Amino acid sequence: MSNDLSTAARGETTAAAPSEARAASNGADALIRTLADNGVTACFANPGTSEMQFVAALDREPRMSAVLCLFEGVATGAADGYGRMADRPAATLLHLGAGYANGGANLHNARRARTPVVNVVGDHATYHRAYDTPLSSDIAGWAAPNSAWVRSADHADRVGPLAAEAVTASLGPPGGCATLILPADSAWNATAVRGRALAPSSPVAPDAERIAEVAAGLRGAKAAGLLIGGRACRARGLAAAARLAAAGVRVWTETFVARQRRGAGIFAPARLAYFGEVAHDELADLDTLVLVEAQAPAAFFAYPDKPSALWPEGCRIEMLAGVDEAGDVALEMLADLLEAPPAGPVACAAAPPAPQGDLFPQSAGAAIARHLPHDAIISDDAVTAGMPIFLQTASAAPHDWLMLTGGAIGQGIPLAIGAAVACPDRKVVSLNGDGAAMYTVQGLWTIAREQLDVTVVVFANGAYKILNVEFGRTGSGRPGPAARRLLDLGRPTIAWTTLAESLGVPATRCETAEAFDAAFASAMGRRGPRLIEAVMSPPPQRVGA
Amino acid sequence: MSNDLSTAARGETTAAAPSEARAASNGADALIRTLADNGVTACFANPGTSEMQFVAALDREPRMSAVLCLFEGVATGAADGYGRMADRPAATLLHLGAGYANGGANLHNARRARTPVVNVVGDHATYHRAYDTPLSSDIAGWAAPNSAWVRSADHADRVGPLAAEAVTASLGPPGGCATLILPADSAWNATAVRGRALAPSSPVAPDAERIAEVAAGLRGAKAAGLLIGGRACRARGLAAAARLAAAGVRVWTETFVARQRRGAGIFAPARLAYFGEVAHDELADLDTLVLVEAQAPAAFFAYPDKPSALWPEGCRIEMLAGVDEAGDVALEMLADLLEAPPAGPVACAAAPPAPQGDLFPQSAGAAIARHLPHDAIISDDAVTAGMPIFLQTASAAPHDWLMLTGGAIGQGIPLAIGAAVACPDRKVVSLNGDGAAMYTVQGLWTIAREQLDVTVVVFANGAYKILNVEFGRTGSGRPGPAARRLLDLGRPTIAWTTLAESLGVPATRCETAEAFDAAFASAMGRRGPRLIEAVMSPPPQRVGA
Repeated sequence: MSNDLSTAARGETTAAAPSEARAASNGADALIRTLADNGVTACFANPGTSEMQFVAALDREPRMSAVLCLFEGVATGAADGYGRMADRPAATLLHLGAGYANGGANLHNARRARTPVVNVVGDHATYHRAYDTPLSSDIAGWAAPNSAWVRSADHADRVGPLAAEAVTASLGPPGGCATLILPADSAWNATAVRGRALAPSSPVAPDAERIAEVAAGLRGAKAAGLLIGGRACRARGLAAAARLAAAGVRVWTETFVARQRRGAGIFAPARLAYFGEVAHDELADLDTLVLVEAQAPAAFFAYPDKPSALWPEGCRIEMLAGVDEAGDVALEMLADLLEAPPAGPVACAAAPPAPQGDLFPQSAGAAIARHLPHDAIISDDAVTAGMPIFLQTASAAPHDWLMLTGGAIGQGIPLAIGAAVACPDRKVVSLNGDGAAMYTVQGLWTIAREQLDVTVVVFANGAYKILNVEFGRTGSGRPGPAARRLLDLGRPTIAWTTLAESLGVPATRCETAEAFDAAFASAMGRRGPRLIEAVMSPPPQRVGA
Repeated sequence: MSNDLSTAARGETTAAAPSEARAASNGADALIRTLADNGVTACFANPGTSEMQFVAALDREPRMSAVLCLFEGVATGAADGYGRMADRPAATLLHLGAGYANGGANLHNARRARTPVVNVVGDHATYHRAYDTPLSSDIAGWAAPNSAWVRSADHADRVGPLAAEAVTASLGPPGGCATLILPADSAWNATAVRGRALAPSSPVAPDAERIAEVAAGLRGAKAAGLLIGGRACRARGLAAAARLAAAGVRVWTETFVARQRRGAGIFAPARLAYFGEVAHDELADLDTLVLVEAQAPAAFFAYPDKPSALWPEGCRIEMLAGVDEAGDVALEMLADLLEAPPAGPVACAAAPPAPQGDLFPQSAGAAIARHLPHDAIISDDAVTAGMPIFLQTASAAPHDWLMLTGGAIGQGIPLAIGAAVACPDRKVVSLNGDGAAMYTVQGLWTIAREQLDVTVVVFANGAYKILNVEFGRTGSGRPGPAARRLLDLGRPTIAWTTLAESLGVPATRCETAEAFDAAFASAMGRRGPRLIEAVMSPPPQRVGA
């Protein structure tokens, strides 16, 4: 018996690729040109050796802008933010399976947001895969849970056509992540094949018959509600939903939507509560609930002795438009069928007064409402601080609000990067819990490098505060010393202003409502990177507690 | 046609679990007690709501210590470091699929190191999965590429037995990641079932017949080499390899091994070069190459016109011991069969003199060699700086060197955390490229919180320097302006000392060899966290260049 492995394991040992052809037009050129031909002109990148051909080709395609991120989770979250605002995909550039994994959590959020994203994942040369070298892993396996489409371009001539397919797949409908694996030899070998430019897809037209059925159901309903998500939360869908509200239908948005238009003059649906039992009570009277690009409502987490399904027993659930359909058009058709008024209620509350005293999420929200410029974009990863600020800003200047669609914290800074790259003329505000901000803190460096017009707010309460709330709700009693150590971020205290400045972002620390109001006003009044550390005051003690 | 989804999607809505039983002994208790019964007494954690029962149960099992990490990649890298040093697994505690993904890259490194790790991944309650809520994802799918074993404990009574199975699976041989998915209801429901304590596994005894064949082959060889990896790089394996070296066999280690014993008085094999063409030249004369817990040598990456397989044509490759076998015992048996001398050569170079002038990796290496205390542990994620320091420290006091086994940068700080928790009486030195350190910079906070005896060195060259080298090697020519922006970390400059101090780690900045020597000596002379920013001098200009 022989142990000689030399024949079995050896395989092909060298690539054959004429250097001239590589320089002229290789697979990497075909990829970047095809992406640009199809409207993909931004790339959030953290490359390694296997992606050097792609990096080199950037200098041969001026339509593509590349932004360096110092961690892949920043790159993927940025692509999500870009896609949500641009309605076309950005590319990511990731280094093999480990790079994809690092970006995986924010791609999970992107999947839940149904954002178009094109991931380009470099791989070893096709003939090199047999050697199972240190960075080898199952890239397609990593990509599967998040990706609507995964392919490997195992020949240079396949790169361009598959890149065009990836763009199409990412746009859906519904939108999603398309992952193109790019072996190094497919990138460096010569090819004349470029993918063709494809017509952009659009949402499926809604089904008139189904809408008529829903209208009939609503006419017979005693207490009807709408739950809207997806693109139905943009301006056009909200205007139609407002008409239905004027006709007596109660309207909620899903608790976390990808992008919502809101502010003064815009219809403000109720936002379904995060805590399931509260949401359950909100919906308790309904006999009919109509879904528009939304899922049947369920609690974010399960808890002992609390319901998971949030609609009441006996409530009829109807789907007006699925996630691949044009929910805004469906809402207009429904409003017409129900002869709803031509316009509905809009938000017109007075701006809150200047906040004073202790710094709570509510007071920060008042300051944000007062100073937010027209058409700002808010990236919300503020966890417990998010909802109070959301409520305070209904009266703010019109803006877009981007939410944590997949529950994977660490989205707030990356998403803001992508939104700012997509919309360089709009102010971007990134709201972050301190625990969430630490996840992808490397993004501050990219904000500084690109001099993006992003104001990052960190709500420093020195804890995973939401978990202090959730601990009791899960039937776990009161945390003991070991448990408390896992919920606390206060020892040592993170010095956020110093941290930001170490990465090139000027920063301000605020401990009072007045200081926050002034710092936020100042940040809104000028362009460029800024971080505001909002040191949260301890909650007021109840009398007798 | 009806759109009524209420029956189809609703499912079971509440859990049934008596609160008393939960407090007495639930699935989470069964898990932690079973882990502790099986020698798993450290847990690196970043929990969320679905893991609160596990967190609560920590206060009921004093044998288990939990360490909070502010990002899952820190937790998994720490578990790898712990497992490499303790030879038994630590647990990680991760929050659903997104939490696993965040930890995935360092689990890739752990897989390549064959380190035992037990991942506990919280999931939604079993009955809640049907609702496809925001954090739902294919956890088993995420875990598959890295895990030797994946199971979901879908009933409280299964948690303990599966926890024991997970420990066994993690220990192998070979060691690896075992991933136990823990639905929230399995954690909170009562159970009296605890997993039993299992006998630890040990490597498979080597095959005497195969060793005799290899010995026969070596007797007939003109130029024989050994390539060793895994546990063969510990003290016992090296001593046996030294005997074979004394008998005329050339000995290499794999380029990246999990843990190597080295320093004064210990046999120092050659380390196979990272660059494939150099390694190919090193092995060019061999007619026989014997693998001991090692793979057939292949280049780290493929390059145009360069070989992937590193052994010469016609060289016979023999496997003395596979990765699941006791390579050290096999080496001893081989040395005995070949009647090798009872001892071989050891490293006995003079300590380098105090370095002077510009600060290069070589001068840092000299300082480290001079001041490294006995039995220190080095966690090496220093990329381009790593090899010069490795070479300089052959004469240092005996120590263990832990390498980047899977090529996924961002391992250096987390691995040091785990090593320090496993070995609280040993000094740990973490060597990091600046690009690598940024990946998991959150780990500095855990070093500060736990007051670990870790000195973190960051080699600040303001670039992904390795990529500047690799760019040309991949046939990409010279980087243009767009490419250079993706390889450069210098705009803005990262202020490492400020960054470290913002996370609670005292820090020193050094720009000369003398300053580094003094700072490193000082850090070695006292316990506790420390960061040294080593600002690399620009490489000397060649005359005429």
